Amino acid sequence: MAKLHTNHTNSELYFVTENTGKFREAYEVLSKYGITLRQLSVKRIEIQSENLEEIAKFSAQQLIKQYNLELIVEDAGLFIEALNGFPGPFSSYVYKTIGVAGILKLMEGKTNRAAQFKSVVCYCSPKSKPAIFTGIVKGAISKEPRGLRGFGFDPIFIPEGSDKTFAEMSVEEKNSFSHRAKAFKAFTEYYLKQILKSR
Amino acid sequence: MAKLHTNHTNSELYFVTENTGKFREAYEVLSKYGITLRQLSVKRIEIQSENLEEIAKFSAQQLIKQYNLELIVEDAGLFIEALNGFPGPFSSYVYKTIGVAGILKLMEGKTNRAAQFKSVVCYCSPKSKPAIFTGIVKGAISKEPRGLRGFGFDPIFIPEGSDKTFAEMSVEEKNSFSHRAKAFKAFTEYYLKQILKSR
Repeated sequence: MAKLHTNHTNSELYFVTENTGKFREAYEVLSKYGITLRQLSVKRIEIQSENLEEIAKFSAQQLIKQYNLELIVEDAGLFIEALNGFPGPFSSYVYKTIGVAGILKLMEGKTNRAAQFKSVVCYCSPKSKPAIFTGIVKGAISKEPRGLRGFGFDPIFIPEGSDKTFAEMSVEEKNSFSHRAKAFKAFTEYYLKQILKSR
Repeated sequence: MAKLHTNHTNSELYFVTENTGKFREAYEVLSKYGITLRQLSVKRIEIQSENLEEIAKFSAQQLIKQYNLELIVEDAGLFIEALNGFPGPFSSYVYKTIGVAGILKLMEGKTNRAAQFKSVVCYCSPKSKPAIFTGIVKGAISKEPRGLRGFGFDPIFIPEGSDKTFAEMSVEEKNSFSHRAKAFKAFTEYYLKQILKSR
């Protein structure tokens, strides 16, 4: 992959996130295309909505008012079928309060363990309207937590096509399955074709 | 109380909520002071925050940009000690997904059943800055749901000083304990003194 590491541009592209785990995953995807992603670790507004697209778009539009930058925000969530989509867009709050143990407790006795992680990336620049990219990975909730890597609910999510949880995988392996990598790949292809080519 | 039912003003005061149960409780409080509250049932923006004051204030400020009205918004949540404050500001989403049964499942085996309901009212008008009023009621999570009145987590919340859950009480009885009635009373006293007197 080394020969792809050409820097296509001098422009600076920021991923607005306080979550270093998320940043690392996105950085890994974009670096394969020769793009260096930068982290802007500031608080941003997230609205309460069951629609990740709406959350990401609102957030990006607010940030563009504050920062004169090309930027990306991402919103993601774990949607568990037997729990009517819970914890969904509120996954990080749920992780901080009831945690992995709380989710496993809620899943006790449930035979349907189907779940999906969804990621929505919103790109915005001072010159362009927001553009949205989505990635989904289907999988199942494990019976107990396994693995120490990743973050959030990674220790209890097993993607289809693997026996490992996300927390048992390296960033590279997780990215071969993950919702976030899919959304960032879709974004990157758009960015190379639509944005960088037009400069 | 009948003699208090004088209409102090011709101005129109709107409570922006889609929740009829909330509206009924607030209406009951304000009508005792002779103020007729009106309902404006429209969607409003709620940000994701652990701070109800921040959520209510942001929401009121957005609404004032859209509507040239005197208005109130309210944000409330159930904070359960043994669950690190969960479900907190996300109570209505949690109610819709895992529901009362989910909360009771998470509370299985917990000896600390302490919880509180908190309500934050934000008043805003085209002429004045947002003003915030808070009400809290302490209580406990019951072992099983009881009662059919109220809404949300009312069937599993027993306020201090009662043996009944909120869902076993009439609006008037619930208001003698409730977080929402306290916040609306505080608002009404301010409104009568600071706003109506100055007209």
